[in-house]
Amino acid sequence: MAKAPVLTPRADDFPRWYQDLITKAELADNGPVRGSMVIRPYGYGLWERMQAEMDARIKETGTENAYFPLLIPQSYLTREADHVEGFAPELAVVTHGGGKELEEPAVVRPTSEMIVNDYFAKWVQSYRDLPLLINQWANVVRWELRPRLFLRTSEFLWQEGHTAHATAAEARDFAAHIHRRVYEDFMVNVLAMDVVPGRKTAKERFAGAVNTLTLEGMMGDGKALQMATSHELGQNFARAFNTSYLSREGRQELVWQTSWGSTTRMIGALVMMHGDDDGLRVPPRLAQIQAVVLAVKDDERVLAKVREIGARLREAGVRVRVDDRVDVPFGRRAVDWELKGVPVRVEVGPRDLENGTATLVRRIAGGKAPVALDAVAAVVPAVLEEDQALLLAQSRERRLARTAEVATVAEAVEAATTGAGWARIPWEVLGAEGEAALAEHAVTVRCLVAADGSVPDDEDAPGNVAVVARAY
Amino acid sequence: MAKAPVLTPRADDFPRWYQDLITKAELADNGPVRGSMVIRPYGYGLWERMQAEMDARIKETGTENAYFPLLIPQSYLTREADHVEGFAPELAVVTHGGGKELEEPAVVRPTSEMIVNDYFAKWVQSYRDLPLLINQWANVVRWELRPRLFLRTSEFLWQEGHTAHATAAEARDFAAHIHRRVYEDFMVNVLAMDVVPGRKTAKERFAGAVNTLTLEGMMGDGKALQMATSHELGQNFARAFNTSYLSREGRQELVWQTSWGSTTRMIGALVMMHGDDDGLRVPPRLAQIQAVVLAVKDDERVLAKVREIGARLREAGVRVRVDDRVDVPFGRRAVDWELKGVPVRVEVGPRDLENGTATLVRRIAGGKAPVALDAVAAVVPAVLEEDQALLLAQSRERRLARTAEVATVAEAVEAATTGAGWARIPWEVLGAEGEAALAEHAVTVRCLVAADGSVPDDEDAPGNVAVVARAY
Repeated sequence: MAKAPVLTPRADDFPRWYQDLITKAELADNGPVRGSMVIRPYGYGLWERMQAEMDARIKETGTENAYFPLLIPQSYLTREADHVEGFAPELAVVTHGGGKELEEPAVVRPTSEMIVNDYFAKWVQSYRDLPLLINQWANVVRWELRPRLFLRTSEFLWQEGHTAHATAAEARDFAAHIHRRVYEDFMVNVLAMDVVPGRKTAKERFAGAVNTLTLEGMMGDGKALQMATSHELGQNFARAFNTSYLSREGRQELVWQTSWGSTTRMIGALVMMHGDDDGLRVPPRLAQIQAVVLAVKDDERVLAKVREIGARLREAGVRVRVDDRVDVPFGRRAVDWELKGVPVRVEVGPRDLENGTATLVRRIAGGKAPVALDAVAAVVPAVLEEDQALLLAQSRERRLARTAEVATVAEAVEAATTGAGWARIPWEVLGAEGEAALAEHAVTVRCLVAADGSVPDDEDAPGNVAVVARAY
Repeated sequence: MAKAPVLTPRADDFPRWYQDLITKAELADNGPVRGSMVIRPYGYGLWERMQAEMDARIKETGTENAYFPLLIPQSYLTREADHVEGFAPELAVVTHGGGKELEEPAVVRPTSEMIVNDYFAKWVQSYRDLPLLINQWANVVRWELRPRLFLRTSEFLWQEGHTAHATAAEARDFAAHIHRRVYEDFMVNVLAMDVVPGRKTAKERFAGAVNTLTLEGMMGDGKALQMATSHELGQNFARAFNTSYLSREGRQELVWQTSWGSTTRMIGALVMMHGDDDGLRVPPRLAQIQAVVLAVKDDERVLAKVREIGARLREAGVRVRVDDRVDVPFGRRAVDWELKGVPVRVEVGPRDLENGTATLVRRIAGGKAPVALDAVAAVVPAVLEEDQALLLAQSRERRLARTAEVATVAEAVEAATTGAGWARIPWEVLGAEGEAALAEHAVTVRCLVAADGSVPDDEDAPGNVAVVARAY
């Protein structure tokens, strides 16, 4: 008799599988206010590791962390016209504070460009104060009509970078550096995610930006997810807030700005890109628990051995958890670690001890095999490296297999809908008109890429290819 | 001619000095919404180091981080009677979301006991799920009528721990462990702060707690500041939310809980405890910049040398910054690092090079002296250790010198007001009546301590001493 599946299989109902996995792997629960979310310790542990890896990369660029207020006077929002139009429908508004109605309502930040510029305008005086490179880790609120855990929640956690530069070229280079050297590097090398770097079309740009750079990932069902974005803001906010500086030549000049963000949505991407019918598969470099050592039975020698193996793995630099909860049935614990996607399980029972081995179970490559007890501490790190690479290769293979090269709008729609994948179509063929036609089928241009795979400097450069798909 | 002071001297106007220092050392600015605050990179760097040190200590207790929503349905607040009474006057209320009036308004969390219990009630089923040990790093909002940067702001950053246990004794022990082994250990050994651990009187307890443990510090002006608190909640929230578990014996039992918090207020405490008329003095173990190496002049050999010294100090494990901004006058940079309280400055000019030395300036112990260039990397770590201990000793000396042993309420009031210090008075003499009399002079019981200096298990244990003071 086949064992009953723990999760709804992906092929049956992908959204249901996603929701099941998040609940059963104890990543998150729905919150009581519509669209809100409780991130449980195992889910938050993924975020903490993401934060640590991202924060180090952000700091390497010379950017420093700071913290701006949650509540923003409503009037600030109206200063940059495109920006307010983009965010007005999503705002949460505080009308009462300390038992009284407020003279001016405050909005809960949906993003911080407005308030950041208010202070940049005070802090920046001369060219010596530039570049000004600031990041913050914070919560933001954007009211969601169709919430989905991690992907679209009314409150989410993120980092938002905000920078001011003396020249347009410097701002452009900085936005590109964050796009490729921070975000893409993190996603490829830590999250083991194949992502496509590109630029957004004018229609898909961030409200208030002159250019939006994006990284798009293909999920397990062939849909796309925008993973992170980096924006050139030009002088739009600088003009609205008069953020200016005295140049070396003694002239008062407006600054050029960037902003860039990545969110807890990356946890949703992790699930949808690497998850399988048995649960999550966490890339070893991200995993807070890279290996779990399980006592199969309540036996003194077994318990002593799992603790010893745990200590040896820790010495070998592996992030390890010893599971000696022998009052919980072994099968239940094994399924739980499988759901949680811990890359390696080292299982030790009385029979293993007799053979001088442990059983090594690989969550990512699959399969189980005996390993000599003395070899465990050497084998596990090698397996972790191998499986990190395997995850990346699998996500790349999926994208290549499910991306069609097409020549017409109709073919693009078909590839993205009935074909459940991505399509690549020359931007010269598609254009803004074709983009509007795609929208009728809920298909969007995820990004434009240059003919050589690089990120185009210009939307209309010859040879640009539009990557189109349905998206989360 | 004496140089003009950079800050208002403490003796002239302590609150003004505090405000001056925070602005000039670039720790924080006032935000646009009343009582809000922008934490600038140098101030936020202090918080990041506090977070790292605290987080490690919290995790050592087996506590895991999680994240609960910012917005809480208003109805939740009313479930625990004392709790709602304590927080109702301070709430910020969201009445509109996504362009519509909400059916039920949401409050911005002033603390998370309510929402945490809602989930604890779901997650805890059996004794196997206990203890449940959760912490979150988050922002909270409590509307402030008399805001002051870091000390009382309408929004502040903090960690809040929430735990559930099977027995009253286990919860009591855990609250005590956090109080002494996490909070006190961090304050004494990292912040170099002399603090007095004690228990709050019934009047000063957290709204909804059965016991509140506190750490009180004496600021530079002799007033007290509550540095962090750890609460036993008994079964008050468990009853309100029916947070119960199936015991080993098969009975359904309510859990016993704790909560505990520490906030960005600790940055204010750092300023007021260690600051002097020249600025902040950051304890070396906390400092994100422990030593700054300054190029005195724009000279190639000088610039090469400061970079070399920087590299050597980094190798020696010192968190170092090289200040080679020779287009800013040296004097201005030196004053700036003094304001920011970087523990050690290593200054290098052409004359130093001729002598084969650098000038070592100690911000904490005071004084400057030449050090052979080859010795810098060995001397600095030793100086940092010495000055960490010195700061702690100075704060302890101040408290001892400015604490009076008194026998009457009148003497206690005098010590705390005209004497500008603390008083210790037997609790049997003071009592709840004397506590009410003190309040007329804005003097409060900061905590009760046992005769032997330990934390009393019982408010009315014989020999208890009340520590009374004016407080921030």
